[in-house]
Amino acid sequence: MGLVVQKYGGSSVADAEGIKRVAKRIVEAKKNGHQVVVVVSAMGDTTDELIDLAEQVSPMPAGREFDMLLTAGERISMALLAMAIKNLGHEAQSFTGSQAGVITDSVHNKARIIDVTPGRIRTALDEGNIAIVAGFQGVSQDKKDITTLGRGGSDTTAVALAAALDAEVCEIYTDVDGVFTADPRVVKKARKIDWISFEDMLELAASGSKVLLHRCVEYARRYNIPIHVRSSFSGLQGTWVSSEPIEQGDQQVEQAIISGVAHDTSEAKVTVVGVPDKPGEAAGIFRAIADAELNIDMIVQNVSAAATGLTDISFTLPKTDGRKAIDALEKAKSTIGFDSLRYDDQIGKISLVGAGMKTNPGVTAGFFEALSNAGVNIELISTSEIRISVVTRADDVPEAVRAVHTAFGLDSDSDEAVVYGGTGR
Amino acid sequence: MGLVVQKYGGSSVADAEGIKRVAKRIVEAKKNGHQVVVVVSAMGDTTDELIDLAEQVSPMPAGREFDMLLTAGERISMALLAMAIKNLGHEAQSFTGSQAGVITDSVHNKARIIDVTPGRIRTALDEGNIAIVAGFQGVSQDKKDITTLGRGGSDTTAVALAAALDAEVCEIYTDVDGVFTADPRVVKKARKIDWISFEDMLELAASGSKVLLHRCVEYARRYNIPIHVRSSFSGLQGTWVSSEPIEQGDQQVEQAIISGVAHDTSEAKVTVVGVPDKPGEAAGIFRAIADAELNIDMIVQNVSAAATGLTDISFTLPKTDGRKAIDALEKAKSTIGFDSLRYDDQIGKISLVGAGMKTNPGVTAGFFEALSNAGVNIELISTSEIRISVVTRADDVPEAVRAVHTAFGLDSDSDEAVVYGGTGR
Repeated sequence: MGLVVQKYGGSSVADAEGIKRVAKRIVEAKKNGHQVVVVVSAMGDTTDELIDLAEQVSPMPAGREFDMLLTAGERISMALLAMAIKNLGHEAQSFTGSQAGVITDSVHNKARIIDVTPGRIRTALDEGNIAIVAGFQGVSQDKKDITTLGRGGSDTTAVALAAALDAEVCEIYTDVDGVFTADPRVVKKARKIDWISFEDMLELAASGSKVLLHRCVEYARRYNIPIHVRSSFSGLQGTWVSSEPIEQGDQQVEQAIISGVAHDTSEAKVTVVGVPDKPGEAAGIFRAIADAELNIDMIVQNVSAAATGLTDISFTLPKTDGRKAIDALEKAKSTIGFDSLRYDDQIGKISLVGAGMKTNPGVTAGFFEALSNAGVNIELISTSEIRISVVTRADDVPEAVRAVHTAFGLDSDSDEAVVYGGTGR
Repeated sequence: MGLVVQKYGGSSVADAEGIKRVAKRIVEAKKNGHQVVVVVSAMGDTTDELIDLAEQVSPMPAGREFDMLLTAGERISMALLAMAIKNLGHEAQSFTGSQAGVITDSVHNKARIIDVTPGRIRTALDEGNIAIVAGFQGVSQDKKDITTLGRGGSDTTAVALAAALDAEVCEIYTDVDGVFTADPRVVKKARKIDWISFEDMLELAASGSKVLLHRCVEYARRYNIPIHVRSSFSGLQGTWVSSEPIEQGDQQVEQAIISGVAHDTSEAKVTVVGVPDKPGEAAGIFRAIADAELNIDMIVQNVSAAATGLTDISFTLPKTDGRKAIDALEKAKSTIGFDSLRYDDQIGKISLVGAGMKTNPGVTAGFFEALSNAGVNIELISTSEIRISVVTRADDVPEAVRAVHTAFGLDSDSDEAVVYGGTGR
């Protein structure tokens, strides 16, 4: 039996009862002969409460102090979890990100892990302890300041520790049963995915699936750490994310042609109208956006009208960055030379993801037919080798997702959204 | 202008408003040309709430994890305070006990500071920052584990940092105006003390005065760091605790014969009845108590009755340790050889403290006369060179304190309990 890293999110440790329930599950793994490292998030709403306090004392809290503040949340949950485990008669020690050797760069609030030196964790394990590590936090290499890893940071902590400790698996415990072929709140017949490749999971995460964040999957793929996403409330098998298909019982889970349908209504569309269609104009637009430190998603340039020599360029980006993008472009208007800007935050994106797409030319056609049959109008299209995405009206998204899900045979046979060990694909 | 260390307790930073008020006061000190180091406790009831959580997950939380948990409280308050200061346009950085170089032994929950290496604080100050340090916490020298210093630990942190940084003064901000000649809740005419020597303050602290704890004063005395106890709610001068009298305006504050009257109703009295009056019997009793790791306060042995050769031995100790003391003595009953035990938790202690006592033989007599005139019966007596203490019924304590306070001319001229810059003594 090898080493497992388990990560529990805030909803799993929301109160004392939750902490005690999680402690029992951890002890089970230990009893089964594993060395266990646990990464834990802050309890329930703790982080939001701390953010609220910060806003009360300062409208623009400084990054360094904000990180110092937020990391108090995991400190509380990890200490309580260690206590609860010890109360069950097993040895446990808790470690801050810094103590666990999570070394980051100095970009406060969204630091990146640059090294993991888990010497103390290794020692604690060798002495028979269960090691509890604060998720979401590290210490900066140059200044030795406390940093946080940004949204989904605890998952990244878990995967990074799993890589540094050469773990068998990184188990991500959450409040859903795994990764689904679509959001079960939108598609009642969505199926739990038994196995998905790193590549498909990366595309799903980039396309709006909330279960795992892109950065965490990227990290796991780089170090080839299998991730097992599962519920902390049930004992069920969840979704395995790994490079090779897993085996279940006697049979190997097959690679699906299509992994799932993701959607995202958190983006807005910016259209730059009347751009002179000559080299360098598009570059000017995206230089202005990059200088404002904004990340954009899809980009589409229309064919220019021959009569005017002008074209339109559209792109999408998170709604939260919309204001900044418009400001940046307005400021650069005279140098870029365009007519006007249009801003539309009533859009949605639907993406179909699957490695099988590469060798199945009918997929694209089937996708557009399904949308057409559902009466959904398409505004933008963007594709990769294993993904095809379209932008539609936000209102059309639920219907579009259901139509595509059904068209590609992803619907579960039963009415239950959660199916365990399904063999239908 | 030199370096000042300011310490703010939990009641001073109980909410966002409190934090902002304290931030303003800190910035004042900085504007006056001081280098400022601030030690801060956890906000209001945070620590109690964390203790409550711990008890929900484990009836006997382990020391290491309990310390990890509790230190989250100061992490929150210090980060918020740094944010609030920066919001006022001044540079501030917060530091955990570990980052501030507060090195302790490994006794969790009541660790002792064994070294302070404030390199990062010094650097932050030299760069023009106000340094905010988490009170109450440190890091153990051998294991590098997070430790807490026990009750009143933030005061000790402040004094220890002041010593290590060679500060001009350590200001302890609290919710009262300073140290009083008696507890103002009991004695309406209690006077704020302008200056008190370390020695007298040590005796007052040991005798029940709650404003400063013994350990903190001891530390300040060893390193000769003047303490200024004052209110964070008013701008008034408070009480100076130092080796030499301070100067106020043109005149030096004189050494008072009597510093004040302290009382304590948190102790219980244990009487061991019928102890054979021969060498080694008393030692047996106190060995049993010491083995149970209990600290006792006063000890009195009565003259033995000639007829029986038996004597009674009484001692006082905190009520919270009463149960353990009785258990330890019952267990050793056969080896010590006594008749019975009596336990009395309805007692109180009144102490008169003042270095002038040494050279004023009338003090002791005056003390007993005052108690006698007030009709207070005395059960135990204990004295040092600069203190005299008696044990009475708990119910008699308020009257006894007032009688002694008046008899030694400590009453304020005005009806106001708080007098600033009084010249009457």
